[in-house]
Amino acid sequence: MSQSEYLHSWIGSSTPDSITVAGRDLASELMGRLTLTELAYLLVTRREPTEAQRRIVDAVLVALADHGFTPSSLATRLTYTGAPESVQGAVAAGLTGAGSVFLGPAGDTALFLETLVSAAPAGSTEDDLRALVAAAIDRLRGDGQRVPGLGHPVHRDGDPRTPRIYELAEAEGLLGPHLRLLRIVAEVHAERSGRRLPINGAGAAGAALVDAGLPGRAVRGVVLIARTAGLVAHLVEEMDEPIGKSLWLEVEHRARP
Amino acid sequence: MSQSEYLHSWIGSSTPDSITVAGRDLASELMGRLTLTELAYLLVTRREPTEAQRRIVDAVLVALADHGFTPSSLATRLTYTGAPESVQGAVAAGLTGAGSVFLGPAGDTALFLETLVSAAPAGSTEDDLRALVAAAIDRLRGDGQRVPGLGHPVHRDGDPRTPRIYELAEAEGLLGPHLRLLRIVAEVHAERSGRRLPINGAGAAGAALVDAGLPGRAVRGVVLIARTAGLVAHLVEEMDEPIGKSLWLEVEHRARP
Amino acid sequence: MSQSEYLHSWIGSSTPDSITVAGRDLASELMGRLTLTELAYLLVTRREPTEAQRRIVDAVLVALADHGFTPSSLATRLTYTGAPESVQGAVAAGLTGAGSVFLGPAGDTALFLETLVSAAPAGSTEDDLRALVAAAIDRLRGDGQRVPGLGHPVHRDGDPRTPRIYELAEAEGLLGPHLRLLRIVAEVHAERSGRRLPINGAGAAGAALVDAGLPGRAVRGVVLIARTAGLVAHLVEEMDEPIGKSLWLEVEHRARP
Amino acid sequence: MSQSEYLHSWIGSSTPDSITVAGRDLASELMGRLTLTELAYLLVTRREPTEAQRRIVDAVLVALADHGFTPSSLATRLTYTGAPESVQGAVAAGLTGAGSVFLGPAGDTALFLETLVSAAPAGSTEDDLRALVAAAIDRLRGDGQRVPGLGHPVHRDGDPRTPRIYELAEAEGLLGPHLRLLRIVAEVHAERSGRRLPINGAGAAGAALVDAGLPGRAVRGVVLIARTAGLVAHLVEEMDEPIGKSLWLEVEHRARP
Repeated sequence: MSQSEYLHSWIGSSTPDSITVAGRDLASELMGRLTLTELAYLLVTRREPTEAQRRIVDAVLVALADHGFTPSSLATRLTYTGAPESVQGAVAAGLTGAGSVFLGPAGDTALFLETLVSAAPAGSTEDDLRALVAAAIDRLRGDGQRVPGLGHPVHRDGDPRTPRIYELAEAEGLLGPHLRLLRIVAEVHAERSGRRLPINGAGAAGAALVDAGLPGRAVRGVVLIARTAGLVAHLVEEMDEPIGKSLWLEVEHRARP
Repeated sequence: MSQSEYLHSWIGSSTPDSITVAGRDLASELMGRLTLTELAYLLVTRREPTEAQRRIVDAVLVALADHGFTPSSLATRLTYTGAPESVQGAVAAGLTGAGSVFLGPAGDTALFLETLVSAAPAGSTEDDLRALVAAAIDRLRGDGQRVPGLGHPVHRDGDPRTPRIYELAEAEGLLGPHLRLLRIVAEVHAERSGRRLPINGAGAAGAALVDAGLPGRAVRGVVLIARTAGLVAHLVEEMDEPIGKSLWLEVEHRARP
Repeated sequence: MSQSEYLHSWIGSSTPDSITVAGRDLASELMGRLTLTELAYLLVTRREPTEAQRRIVDAVLVALADHGFTPSSLATRLTYTGAPESVQGAVAAGLTGAGSVFLGPAGDTALFLETLVSAAPAGSTEDDLRALVAAAIDRLRGDGQRVPGLGHPVHRDGDPRTPRIYELAEAEGLLGPHLRLLRIVAEVHAERSGRRLPINGAGAAGAALVDAGLPGRAVRGVVLIARTAGLVAHLVEEMDEPIGKSLWLEVEHRARP
Repeated sequence: MSQSEYLHSWIGSSTPDSITVAGRDLASELMGRLTLTELAYLLVTRREPTEAQRRIVDAVLVALADHGFTPSSLATRLTYTGAPESVQGAVAAGLTGAGSVFLGPAGDTALFLETLVSAAPAGSTEDDLRALVAAAIDRLRGDGQRVPGLGHPVHRDGDPRTPRIYELAEAEGLLGPHLRLLRIVAEVHAERSGRRLPINGAGAAGAALVDAGLPGRAVRGVVLIARTAGLVAHLVEEMDEPIGKSLWLEVEHRARP
């Protein structure tokens, strides 16, 4: 076995006169034929999405792209204030904060549900699933951890994206085991904790992406594509109507020593 | 004027029971109706793209998403090797390298062409444009700078993405002033320098995005959305078939002290 | 309580004619009097280090600054290849990979030991400590987690930094409860697992920093100061003798499609 | 010549039982003997600093470590709000903004002065230097560019760090050609522009580092070591007295849609 054996990527390669992406000729077989969303799906799963899958993935990415001023978009704008020569650096700074608190929960929910679904024997009844979920929730709560996909600091009585994701998935025939199980998770959690937390948008998004055919371990990454779009929009707005410098000077001025 | 006057974003906002993006209700007016590409266009330009514009933007994003092993995708994989808990950090590390040498030239070309096009008086003849371009090229070459959009380290005799971008733009009726001017740039550059450099894919991409209605200053950012998709695919592949640790150990082993 | 009440930092502030850092006048009370290491210690703990503490902190930072080609330094160099205009971005890319696998274990060990030390009642005998450690190790092993501070992928029979850290701490009178407990951790781990793993340099570093007065939660950050120094050196070497582009082209050339 | 010929680093390497840094045995020859500042100097210049050089480098790093709330430290804190699991990511986000506007000017000034000093023939009189500087300033102003090292948005009548840097350099016998030339730059700039701008702290810092023996191209990187120390202190403070979430919620609350 040669030393290079490990150097392999299915994703793409190029020669002086051609570029291959996903095993296809980029110029003639992908450009003008796939949307960016379809290409992302293909690169991650090695299959093109069905039209229904594509619609759900786009709906979820649209749901997660942006909410205005967030810690991420503020970090992007403040980074641009200091380094306007590096647009990519400012976007990278904002993405770095899309971790366990914001956006990351989409991937955490996807993995949590995927593990439960694959642990459920074929032919499990709803009662079987409830028992499985109850055990998982008790384990998390015993370790002092939160149940992924539930609760939101702002949308306390319900995240407006959640019912829309369920509605769209239903309409596309993609309301599958992960979205269904997430509803059971919310119910069982309310029973065990005595406290009803709504399914948040990130959690529904993660479940919908898995039901649309994406592997759970890809979800943390895939949602970053949407967030990049939002951060880029913030940067363009910051170029035209900057707030970074004023925000910094206000904070410095108001700070108690 | 209150202190908050400067804190403003058109991009989005949320209240406990609603999320507004681009002045529309996210759940009912955007999710399920727009693709991610369309949302990105809307967020950056404040207009929805026409179908032709959407097709060109998607084709360009597909063209720029990935080429396999690049400095960016290797940085993403090596970062994941050291910090597998931070998917977003690994993507951010890869994006940080999408600067003046790779990917950045799309934005540089867009700005360069936009400046020239807006400097050309209405009714300029092709000869007028050639004179304008010649002056700009002489200025760049006099300063020892490269002309944006020309030449490629691998695709020396022509970048396969370039003719495809022109073909698609033509088919959509969007082969506009920036794509046309880029051809003149390549011709005039060959005349002035005695050396014919082909239009590279990044350059054609930048010109096509401006002809599709995006402002030049947004291009450096918009192309990052595509690259994020590519880097996420590399991360998922790295989870399944890791190369980061082997590459590091091989480099360390082979290095001369 | 005014809205600004929460905006507070002890670290520093400035007015048009003065800069205050750590409650002192920067120009007259800190510049020329403290080393960078002493300032870092002061900023993190709000006390100046004793000379012994300063020596241990410097020894540990020197131990962790660099080891030549690592995933981090390769990511820094590859990022510079694509974005040479952004020195700070290249350093940031390298730091992003200093996570749970590399360098992060220093902080993980510091927190692990700090928790154990503060759980041990005053007057605990060595046998009490062994029982406490055994319980903690069994818990980690039961969860399938590694014991922080033990084992190294390269230095399998012993990390050369570890005995030196113990020797220096002893000489400075700072071989305290955390460094001592780490030895017990290694012994008890060998007993419970039947497999002797040496104390690694990162683990000894984390223990030594806590014995030198730094809080455990600061250690993950403090060691990044050292790593920044190493990454900056790699960047300067990359400017003079670049390897990034050659490494990329070699990988691309050797990759199987 | 073997394929590996290009893979070379003077900085460091390791074998199973030893670690070599800067050509010395890390454990026995560097740990406990050098401070972090001395190691950084050694790694970048391949020489150990004299005691005078070390003192100036430390004074400059202390000068640049932190000023309280800045765009960089706010970006670090906001990133931690979203991704508390990734201390290194939060530091990286803050460093990414240390670009052309903040901190970067230290390196820009160093390079500008180094170029002028090396362009001045041996035996140049002060009048010769003034003429050289005047030409450089006219060139920059003709291109609409700022003269590096002059002016500060907050310290309009003089940066308190500047006279201290000159004083310390004088005391150490290191007030060399770059610091001297920077004074001439400020005077000539005032003559040519009719507007007196004080030498800023970053500019004086950059000049002092070059007079202390660091190459100009290393300065942009070296100052990041100091800033990392400041950002780490902000993170530890953010862990104890968080402001990120409150700042975000206040901005979102106050923002006009």
